[in-house]
Amino acid sequence: MLTLFHHPLLASCRFVRLSFGEFGEELALIEEKPWMRRKEFLALNPAGSLPVLLAEGDTPIVGASVIAEYIDETRGALKRDKRLFAEDPFLRAEVRRLVEWYLGKTDSEVTRHLVRERAFKPMMSSMQGGGSPDSAAIRVARGNLKPHLKYTNWLAGTRHWLAGSKLSYADLAAAAALSVLDYLGEIEWRDYPEAREWYVRIKSRPSFRPLLSDRTAGLSPVSHYADLDF
Amino acid sequence: MLTLFHHPLLASCRFVRLSFGEFGEELALIEEKPWMRRKEFLALNPAGSLPVLLAEGDTPIVGASVIAEYIDETRGALKRDKRLFAEDPFLRAEVRRLVEWYLGKTDSEVTRHLVRERAFKPMMSSMQGGGSPDSAAIRVARGNLKPHLKYTNWLAGTRHWLAGSKLSYADLAAAAALSVLDYLGEIEWRDYPEAREWYVRIKSRPSFRPLLSDRTAGLSPVSHYADLDF
Repeated sequence: MLTLFHHPLLASCRFVRLSFGEFGEELALIEEKPWMRRKEFLALNPAGSLPVLLAEGDTPIVGASVIAEYIDETRGALKRDKRLFAEDPFLRAEVRRLVEWYLGKTDSEVTRHLVRERAFKPMMSSMQGGGSPDSAAIRVARGNLKPHLKYTNWLAGTRHWLAGSKLSYADLAAAAALSVLDYLGEIEWRDYPEAREWYVRIKSRPSFRPLLSDRTAGLSPVSHYADLDF
Repeated sequence: MLTLFHHPLLASCRFVRLSFGEFGEELALIEEKPWMRRKEFLALNPAGSLPVLLAEGDTPIVGASVIAEYIDETRGALKRDKRLFAEDPFLRAEVRRLVEWYLGKTDSEVTRHLVRERAFKPMMSSMQGGGSPDSAAIRVARGNLKPHLKYTNWLAGTRHWLAGSKLSYADLAAAAALSVLDYLGEIEWRDYPEAREWYVRIKSRPSFRPLLSDRTAGLSPVSHYADLDF
């Protein structure tokens, strides 16, 4: 069994868990608090970021999209219909664009700020940057969230899955990001009916189940978080 | 000939130009000022970010690492020794980790801040976020730069090229980022002799020549910028 260093409230880590989950492969999970900057963890990844996969031979593979490419090269390419990537280079580029959208753009404009202010800061010492939430940062992130939900609603309304006709890494990246925001109660699903219909579908998949039982210290999820029909 | 929407002072755009340059393929370049948020450009890439490649059939391919994977799938895989990627999945992961390091981490901690404050703000209206440079942001970015140069120096001292024995996308990503910082005169090369030796080698390659004649409005490069022996 491979090992994943992760945190349950980071979208990029949820994305990797969903990807292995879709292939029915279990992971040994080690929860890492990245703000602790543990020496042993920095030796695996000098960037200090999550996720890090210890692959075959305990070789560290660093970063969500790097791990996704690795999974595809070593497993996905053999999965035919269940592959989480397209065969065509243009469709592959579209999948990668959307992975980068949700784990890069959505993260840097919305997700990471809400997670830091609302979930991480209360656990961090003042030396580590902890303290009271910055309400201005929360307000900006909440404002930024709307176009991301609108865009997801548009994608879900025009395509069966977000990158096209097949489930792909794009759906897992979007679901990973939105599930973190949903845990925090930040999403008004009724305003985004097409996105909601897509999210119900993906949330019902067996790969999603472990994420629905995630709990983080001192912060309970919104009441509908684990409901498959919300 | 394919078309690239780019800006000469963005590392991610320089990376794509170097990648095509290594394969001897010319690009039609269109300079885009991303802060203008041109409607026609947003139609190609709703994220509004650079680079965007118009590939065969004018299909937009968005983002540096997405374009790099596309180039490898459609060209690189046939190039044998000149391929900018490794064959082995673990080595491929190492190349991708370093591309992400220089175009993601270095960019968000250092490069984009120095470029915005020193080069873009004077060209932007106040509505677009222009104005005087923020000296605190410049100070923080300059402080952040040192560990990135130290890390590059360490990589260059322990490996022939940054990801291993062969030239790869990792070198092009690092050279793209450092060449922008060098244009701005931000690098004290004498403090990083191994990085300097590696940079002299990559700067001498024909693919690098077009970058050395880049000039941006109102901001000349540091005097040694285009010297191959500096």
